[in-house]
Amino acid sequence: MHCTQVAAQLVLNMSVIIRDAVREDCVAIHGLIKELAQFEKFPDGVKTTHEELANHGFGPHVFFKCKVAETAESKQVEPQKKVVGYALYYLTYSTWEGPSMFLEDLYVTPAYRGKGTGAALFRAVAKAAVQDKCARMMWCVLDWNKPAINMYRKFGGYDITEEEKWHMYRMNRDILQQVADDQSVF
Amino acid sequence: MHCTQVAAQLVLNMSVIIRDAVREDCVAIHGLIKELAQFEKFPDGVKTTHEELANHGFGPHVFFKCKVAETAESKQVEPQKKVVGYALYYLTYSTWEGPSMFLEDLYVTPAYRGKGTGAALFRAVAKAAVQDKCARMMWCVLDWNKPAINMYRKFGGYDITEEEKWHMYRMNRDILQQVADDQSVF
Repeated sequence: MHCTQVAAQLVLNMSVIIRDAVREDCVAIHGLIKELAQFEKFPDGVKTTHEELANHGFGPHVFFKCKVAETAESKQVEPQKKVVGYALYYLTYSTWEGPSMFLEDLYVTPAYRGKGTGAALFRAVAKAAVQDKCARMMWCVLDWNKPAINMYRKFGGYDITEEEKWHMYRMNRDILQQVADDQSVF
Repeated sequence: MHCTQVAAQLVLNMSVIIRDAVREDCVAIHGLIKELAQFEKFPDGVKTTHEELANHGFGPHVFFKCKVAETAESKQVEPQKKVVGYALYYLTYSTWEGPSMFLEDLYVTPAYRGKGTGAALFRAVAKAAVQDKCARMMWCVLDWNKPAINMYRKFGGYDITEEEKWHMYRMNRDILQQVADDQSVF
């Protein structure tokens, strides 16, 4: 198991590696999830705890997989390791093309940007999608997040909201409960 | 098993019921998937076969669940049964709120519209989402599909592309493979 993980590591440069997340990373990942929510201007968006995240990713029902970018800087006698980015993803299904990969979040903390870490995380998820025989990969991005959009476009991603007019809809918990309960909506 | 299915059926009116799809429904569901693709103006969109659909929904890895609307009209001595609509869905994950439901497709064949069948299918998926402790339900819709949008808005769904500026991005199979293979993109 340990050997497989080592083999699966992608050494980006002397200081950052990409590897599969483990349960023990969830406190760090949860911290980055909150940073991303701040960046996306939804500072109160994160309702989950790091314990829930760990249970959802590494419990009896596995809801997602995650790659992390980890520093391995030798500042001291013991190398100082730290999770500085993550990409969280899961399998979905297209009735037109079959199994698909959805990239839920991709984030690198500011001090570690501009070194190809985001691109390496993205590529690691693309690799996982190919291994899982996915026909395609999808994700969402806020239309003002130009640095992310530039990277996605360089990779060959295209905006299906712009080009095909797909809009995303959401129904939150209270409305969902109401719709499920109420037999008289229509 | 049979009793559970009967209990889970939602009798809409004298002629249509909503029930969980079974493997044997996949030929009919696949026919409706192709009708929906035509309606959405992507007539060549459907690359999957009904055998693949059956394997993806009822094989060793279950990629989706599906509700079907079935007629039970007694035109002859034996009631004539026919699948006239479907709603295909699966669990996803929100890093902000936890387990979520994604409604991939909702479709009712034209001759059976206007009788609340689409609304009943939608409600059946909302009920499944609540049972699975989902924090929210999401779906995509083409911005010109006003009848669908009207129904979604009546239920309390809101357009997060319009209101929060989320855009959907996609990367198809050949680009995905290229990104996974190419170490020199960045």
